[in-house]
Amino acid sequence: MDLSLFEYDPKATLAQLTNDMIETYRQEDSIHHLGYCPLPNYRVIVETLEDLKDILFPGYRRKEKLHFGNVEYLIGQLIDSVNERLTNQISRALCHDRGLSISCTAQQRQDFERIGLEKSIEFLRRLPEIRRKLMLDVQAAYKGDPACKSYDEAVFCYPGIEAITVYRIAHELYILGVPLIPRMMSEWAHSKTGIDIHPGATIGESFFIDHGTGVVIGQTCNIGNWVKLYQGVTLGALSFPTDEEGNLVRGVKRHPTIEDNVVIYANATILGGQTVIGKDCVIGSSVWLTQSVAPGTTVTIERPKLRIKE
Amino acid sequence: MDLSLFEYDPKATLAQLTNDMIETYRQEDSIHHLGYCPLPNYRVIVETLEDLKDILFPGYRRKEKLHFGNVEYLIGQLIDSVNERLTNQISRALCHDRGLSISCTAQQRQDFERIGLEKSIEFLRRLPEIRRKLMLDVQAAYKGDPACKSYDEAVFCYPGIEAITVYRIAHELYILGVPLIPRMMSEWAHSKTGIDIHPGATIGESFFIDHGTGVVIGQTCNIGNWVKLYQGVTLGALSFPTDEEGNLVRGVKRHPTIEDNVVIYANATILGGQTVIGKDCVIGSSVWLTQSVAPGTTVTIERPKLRIKE
Amino acid sequence: MDLSLFEYDPKATLAQLTNDMIETYRQEDSIHHLGYCPLPNYRVIVETLEDLKDILFPGYRRKEKLHFGNVEYLIGQLIDSVNERLTNQISRALCHDRGLSISCTAQQRQDFERIGLEKSIEFLRRLPEIRRKLMLDVQAAYKGDPACKSYDEAVFCYPGIEAITVYRIAHELYILGVPLIPRMMSEWAHSKTGIDIHPGATIGESFFIDHGTGVVIGQTCNIGNWVKLYQGVTLGALSFPTDEEGNLVRGVKRHPTIEDNVVIYANATILGGQTVIGKDCVIGSSVWLTQSVAPGTTVTIERPKLRIKE
Repeated sequence: MDLSLFEYDPKATLAQLTNDMIETYRQEDSIHHLGYCPLPNYRVIVETLEDLKDILFPGYRRKEKLHFGNVEYLIGQLIDSVNERLTNQISRALCHDRGLSISCTAQQRQDFERIGLEKSIEFLRRLPEIRRKLMLDVQAAYKGDPACKSYDEAVFCYPGIEAITVYRIAHELYILGVPLIPRMMSEWAHSKTGIDIHPGATIGESFFIDHGTGVVIGQTCNIGNWVKLYQGVTLGALSFPTDEEGNLVRGVKRHPTIEDNVVIYANATILGGQTVIGKDCVIGSSVWLTQSVAPGTTVTIERPKLRIKE
Repeated sequence: MDLSLFEYDPKATLAQLTNDMIETYRQEDSIHHLGYCPLPNYRVIVETLEDLKDILFPGYRRKEKLHFGNVEYLIGQLIDSVNERLTNQISRALCHDRGLSISCTAQQRQDFERIGLEKSIEFLRRLPEIRRKLMLDVQAAYKGDPACKSYDEAVFCYPGIEAITVYRIAHELYILGVPLIPRMMSEWAHSKTGIDIHPGATIGESFFIDHGTGVVIGQTCNIGNWVKLYQGVTLGALSFPTDEEGNLVRGVKRHPTIEDNVVIYANATILGGQTVIGKDCVIGSSVWLTQSVAPGTTVTIERPKLRIKE
Repeated sequence: MDLSLFEYDPKATLAQLTNDMIETYRQEDSIHHLGYCPLPNYRVIVETLEDLKDILFPGYRRKEKLHFGNVEYLIGQLIDSVNERLTNQISRALCHDRGLSISCTAQQRQDFERIGLEKSIEFLRRLPEIRRKLMLDVQAAYKGDPACKSYDEAVFCYPGIEAITVYRIAHELYILGVPLIPRMMSEWAHSKTGIDIHPGATIGESFFIDHGTGVVIGQTCNIGNWVKLYQGVTLGALSFPTDEEGNLVRGVKRHPTIEDNVVIYANATILGGQTVIGKDCVIGSSVWLTQSVAPGTTVTIERPKLRIKE
């Protein structure tokens, strides 16, 4: 390496570089978040999710030695603390959604804090119902996997339970109209489990995803009860309608409907908002489907070609 | 949003919610871990795994400036400390497995501590053999990937080496009859690498997984020596036998056997406990197989259909 | 469990085990990093990447309440601090690459520190250009996904943006000849997103990966502008040429070329260094391709077989 190629003053170069970077922030079409109210904070959202999991599945993870004598006190504390953080984070998300700058009025912030509180409380009121659904999901995991030894193992070790837990939390916030936070939650679960469930999807009871890495469930999916998916299953969009100017139309149903009692094996791909997989269907591994399938049908791919090596 | 819809007292609502949540814990069929001996602790298990990796691959990661003059002291300390933590965590797993409550006797706990110690020591005695196998795995990674520049790069950067290291540790604990902990370990590796190897699987020497995201290796797989897998490969179950009451039969061989010297390319799916892939086979990318294949066979899928866009 | 099987002295056994482990480090063909200059440190590399993301997308993540009045000061500080750490880490990577032991001379280390500084500065000078490309990538994400509500959501929540950001950083270090660190960075992104982009790959502008889990982009790929990939897409090698002694030949083009404006749907696999996907092609989900495809072609797999359950 010819060092003479690099003859410049490091300090001056770095100072110049700082100016150049700042310049890029000032350009038209620039992407930055300078001068706006703070976004929700990832660390706080993740901590809040962990606390919600301690409330939904008490005694499994971070809080040890819980019993019926002390759990009420702890859960009461956790719920208060979650409410405080959620209120603040939701109000940040609302400020961001309205494009508020850091010079917004105290009144504006207070308004969003109040809406944040209302949404947080409304969300927390739904926790018992979320827990009821999660108990059914855990039972479905145990019933659906011969390698699973107990409900405890499903709660404690199964990424599918992790993903569906975060989904059921994020989905409630989504239908309460909370911006950004549901997506932050679902991407956190995606990062940990490889399972990508859009918080806008509708998923019935007793849902089980085994292994799960690579699963994608799109925003406008509609999934019934007792559905079981394996790793790599995509429930996705076929193609995107565009408006007269060629821009994507956002908000139409683009993802499939899966009726009750359907099993979809590893790496199968089902696409399209008009595609309906009827109840009791079995979709084989690696199948690619863009058409509806009548109830009770089994779908498989062709057998592969064998060649004997010379 | 009409705020009048939400006119209630936040404090009272949260207190009521706490009561409602506690009520769900008391229901029949409820899923909680209240009043039981503590489960193994995830943070401790993960820390212990990191220490085991420092013992198995000395000098690569957290402990810097190690040399033959100081490594013995450090490794001695690490082994003592790992033994102490493993003993405690295994005894927790055993207590949990027997369903012991927090009011179990001191004698019961002491008994499990002693068994925990015995299992921990027996596990640690197998570390040199685990290390011998891991050296072969690292060599297989280097030999199997043209993008790999050195053994060091394989140890330092390859998720396949990370996953097989955790598998070889978890598998020894599994065959020593340690409950839960092997699964906690394998799910941690799964979360980090996207590679899901059940600790019950049997895997031979010089094993290599390249890229790895989405790989699933089921509990009753039997894999020979010099086998190479790519990302997205599933070695899974075809269907689950049920008993007379419709419950899954647990413990039968449900996953395939892969003989020596087999290569399985990306996203191939091989299913079934009776399926045997004979030695020297090559299974092409995206192939779906539920039947046995004779030694020396190459299996590929049909060519796709081309259409010229109008 | 028959405890009499385990009658030995735990202390003595652990001491013996320590000796046995040390012995394995001394064996021929042993894999260890004892007595060498320290490798780059993962924690420092990850922290540096986070700081680089704060420079490239100011105000989104860790630094809150930034505005045009205070951002210059902060960015200046961050750039100085990143330069200091990068200089040190690059010099470690260079020492490692030359196999320097801890007893190398002060002069040798100083030489590598100086080269480290030159490479760090040269890399930092390219940050504005990296940021220009990332703005185009963010715009491509928004334009390519109907579920995406704003540029902010793409920056803040999309794993595809995370992966391409790390790739564009790692790729510049790669072409500056920095050993190891680019691979450490890409494996960190792989672990978080499930997207495995080798830093040696060449990727054009306005690139978008949606969902992303399981994507593999090999070292010698060549990707044009306005290319869109979905989860599970493999751009991989077909087979590896070996030399006369059966060893892999490293460095030849093994991975495909993807021309401008191509869309590749979920779980498609495209293999081979001679394979060229012409511009404006659409490659359907789950397609497996090892041959070139003329511009403007749509490629799909056969429809699956339907069977009606009895």
